Amino acid sequence: MIAGPCAIESRAQIDLTAKFVASAGAQMVRGGAYKPRTSPYAFQGLGEEGVKLIADACANAGLPAVVEALAEAQLLVLEWYVDMIQIGARNMQNFALLQAAARTMKPILLKRAPFATLDEVLYAAEYILLEGNPNVVLCERGVRGFDPQTRNLFDLGGALRLKELTHLPVIADPSHATGRVSLIEPLVLAAAAAGLDGAIVEVHPEPSVALSDAEQALDFEAFSRLMRRLDALRGTLELKPKLTALK
Amino acid sequence: MIAGPCAIESRAQIDLTAKFVASAGAQMVRGGAYKPRTSPYAFQGLGEEGVKLIADACANAGLPAVVEALAEAQLLVLEWYVDMIQIGARNMQNFALLQAAARTMKPILLKRAPFATLDEVLYAAEYILLEGNPNVVLCERGVRGFDPQTRNLFDLGGALRLKELTHLPVIADPSHATGRVSLIEPLVLAAAAAGLDGAIVEVHPEPSVALSDAEQALDFEAFSRLMRRLDALRGTLELKPKLTALK
Amino acid sequence: MIAGPCAIESRAQIDLTAKFVASAGAQMVRGGAYKPRTSPYAFQGLGEEGVKLIADACANAGLPAVVEALAEAQLLVLEWYVDMIQIGARNMQNFALLQAAARTMKPILLKRAPFATLDEVLYAAEYILLEGNPNVVLCERGVRGFDPQTRNLFDLGGALRLKELTHLPVIADPSHATGRVSLIEPLVLAAAAAGLDGAIVEVHPEPSVALSDAEQALDFEAFSRLMRRLDALRGTLELKPKLTALK
Amino acid sequence: MIAGPCAIESRAQIDLTAKFVASAGAQMVRGGAYKPRTSPYAFQGLGEEGVKLIADACANAGLPAVVEALAEAQLLVLEWYVDMIQIGARNMQNFALLQAAARTMKPILLKRAPFATLDEVLYAAEYILLEGNPNVVLCERGVRGFDPQTRNLFDLGGALRLKELTHLPVIADPSHATGRVSLIEPLVLAAAAAGLDGAIVEVHPEPSVALSDAEQALDFEAFSRLMRRLDALRGTLELKPKLTALK
Repeated sequence: MIAGPCAIESRAQIDLTAKFVASAGAQMVRGGAYKPRTSPYAFQGLGEEGVKLIADACANAGLPAVVEALAEAQLLVLEWYVDMIQIGARNMQNFALLQAAARTMKPILLKRAPFATLDEVLYAAEYILLEGNPNVVLCERGVRGFDPQTRNLFDLGGALRLKELTHLPVIADPSHATGRVSLIEPLVLAAAAAGLDGAIVEVHPEPSVALSDAEQALDFEAFSRLMRRLDALRGTLELKPKLTALK
Repeated sequence: MIAGPCAIESRAQIDLTAKFVASAGAQMVRGGAYKPRTSPYAFQGLGEEGVKLIADACANAGLPAVVEALAEAQLLVLEWYVDMIQIGARNMQNFALLQAAARTMKPILLKRAPFATLDEVLYAAEYILLEGNPNVVLCERGVRGFDPQTRNLFDLGGALRLKELTHLPVIADPSHATGRVSLIEPLVLAAAAAGLDGAIVEVHPEPSVALSDAEQALDFEAFSRLMRRLDALRGTLELKPKLTALK
Repeated sequence: MIAGPCAIESRAQIDLTAKFVASAGAQMVRGGAYKPRTSPYAFQGLGEEGVKLIADACANAGLPAVVEALAEAQLLVLEWYVDMIQIGARNMQNFALLQAAARTMKPILLKRAPFATLDEVLYAAEYILLEGNPNVVLCERGVRGFDPQTRNLFDLGGALRLKELTHLPVIADPSHATGRVSLIEPLVLAAAAAGLDGAIVEVHPEPSVALSDAEQALDFEAFSRLMRRLDALRGTLELKPKLTALK
Repeated sequence: MIAGPCAIESRAQIDLTAKFVASAGAQMVRGGAYKPRTSPYAFQGLGEEGVKLIADACANAGLPAVVEALAEAQLLVLEWYVDMIQIGARNMQNFALLQAAARTMKPILLKRAPFATLDEVLYAAEYILLEGNPNVVLCERGVRGFDPQTRNLFDLGGALRLKELTHLPVIADPSHATGRVSLIEPLVLAAAAAGLDGAIVEVHPEPSVALSDAEQALDFEAFSRLMRRLDALRGTLELKPKLTALK
């Protein structure tokens, strides 16, 4: 379980969140420092300052950190401070970035683009593997659907098929897939029951004032409940998630 | 859990299947007598003879039967012999058929069309409810996706959102949603863990010789294993499926 | 060019429209008597009375009429009064209706469903052809897209590919495809320039008070301008539309 | 009309093609030097050498050149040698690249990603405009569809709607939109008749031996015929394409 805020907003916010998700059982902390925003007028993240904040917060919480890279120039900073580098959905076929990120030799969290076929996901991963970096985690975060009731269309069947096609771990991101707080817990449980290797969810101390993605972040209480239910479920299913190897 | 063959092929086939799925814990038997086939050259089903065969088989197995109606003329037969009438995805907006089926006062299993928004599903259900028939079960069976790796794209997030929008039960059909035997068990478990109200799957004594949908039917052994795992999961989650009321 | 209102609303409305579109150069009049409405609470059409109104209006205007059938029971009326029977997108795979409509031996206007592959369209047409009725016109009216800026996504490339795959004529319905008055003229011109065999558009004497699809009907002035531009374009391209054979 | 090979393969190939498309009436030459390939094992382009080849070829042919940039490091070369910089569909939301390309002050050809809503296209353009570069041409090259009969789904209605939403010119790329040689001419004519501002097509001296996109390149004879038909059509419609300003 990877958890944390969409965007790192302040030292207090990321410290508090990292400490909390660690206590609730998460294995890794996420947080955006360089934010890929559809609109240039939206909050673009704290940049390098944000990276340092999450690094400190994770050191205190005893968990590794994953942060997204948007451009090659950010990789030097990320390589120094964080444990895993995320390539977001918008950059899944930004091949220059894939190769440069791969060469940091950090584990890469590669998100499926909303239009990408499974073959295209696998070829994107291949750009990383070919640089000699074997540590790639694939992430289903929803494909573009036709019904505005959910932000995207969570393709659980596709994620499961992806696991049949590759040895790489595949995790679920129900926050971006649905854009609805109420659907995150059921979809994490679904992903676990179906045998995916993990999940990444957005958690914020006070979602209603979040600077981005306010409508899809769990608050601490909701995250605690999710972790309790997930534990109960995993006991039953005897899952052996591969992601723990990253710790 | 509703289980049975895509198409009723013979007395032996449907008797054997009904008895088996009953013993494995299914609550209802499905079987197609009038088959809606994309191609006019494909097997079109046994028709009225098939309806009688599944009625006999279900009487022996002690389970109710659900059969799809393709045309108003078939409703008289179905009303007499079966317990629930299915409206398939291709006819979700065949409003004349919806109304006529509703007037039988049998429970209706209404499948979401592969292009239908949730609003369109709810309006289709409204055509049934307005006839005074309150017993409608909605079924997610996959929307049209862009990746040929799966036959359709199973929209679990949409099905969960549908439950938020209506009091009607919502079940999952992973057989048609994915078209792949290997994905049926994980998606049924996922649907259960996420809180859907039930599932409908294709089961055939010998899938490789089935006259239709051979590639998406479970054999008896796979169905038994699915039911065992589903039981284990349901114990944990304390689910109270509404579908049992139909028995 | 087939033109007329979405729904037949009154004798005056359909008389006026038929006379006008005839004078502007249309070859056929369309008008809905039995309306397939997503919501059961929306205007459902005038039924048999509407069929008689369009038959009278077309007799006066000297043009043939096309009206959609929603159910087999309506075919007797349509067979008697109109020249062509439309099967709407929602019923493209209502195979019982396709076969019954085919047996009237009237030409059939078959609309592509918003999720249908070209193969599925061709198989649906095959259900008609197999009844011995060779007169099928296919119609592209938009597939389900992901951007709410247009009602559907007009698949001109698909319509052209369809013409490569079959000898049947293929026409365009930009009214339903886009749901925007401003896009109808350019898309009709585009369809003509690309070589499709015709178009069907919604025309209403006063779109702002239309009982259905008000936002996608041309008024008389806009339809006149469209026909003038279409004539100029067709002169250049020396198109030989197959649809005129229906007159 | 922008025309040229998918990939620059040799001096002879690009010289011959540039000279030919100039003589046939094209206003600009396209050619890929840095190729964004789904698979890392596919031909990746000649790189800087290719840029120099197209610059020489265009100098001889008397036409400007447009070449795609995949990474910031390529912009120095492109800025020096070519007249317009293309941002491909895979990089439409690679915001760092958009901004860096914008700062060259060269005109930018921005391709719509296959999943992008019109709003997302406009916001991507805004990233360029905000850098002070006003010369952006938008390009529709097909959205992800569900029918493998065409490579993508050419969204002509969306392109026309885009023109209503912005003052920026919008052009069509039917080569990538359909992936079928036979559909390129009709779709260019359609785009012109509908009022789009231009088109970009793939032309190769010998498509069957092209190193990429062999199945969607016109040969010289087909391109000549297209230009003749386009001229006839444009005479009729009195189009005033904005793209000529770029010359």
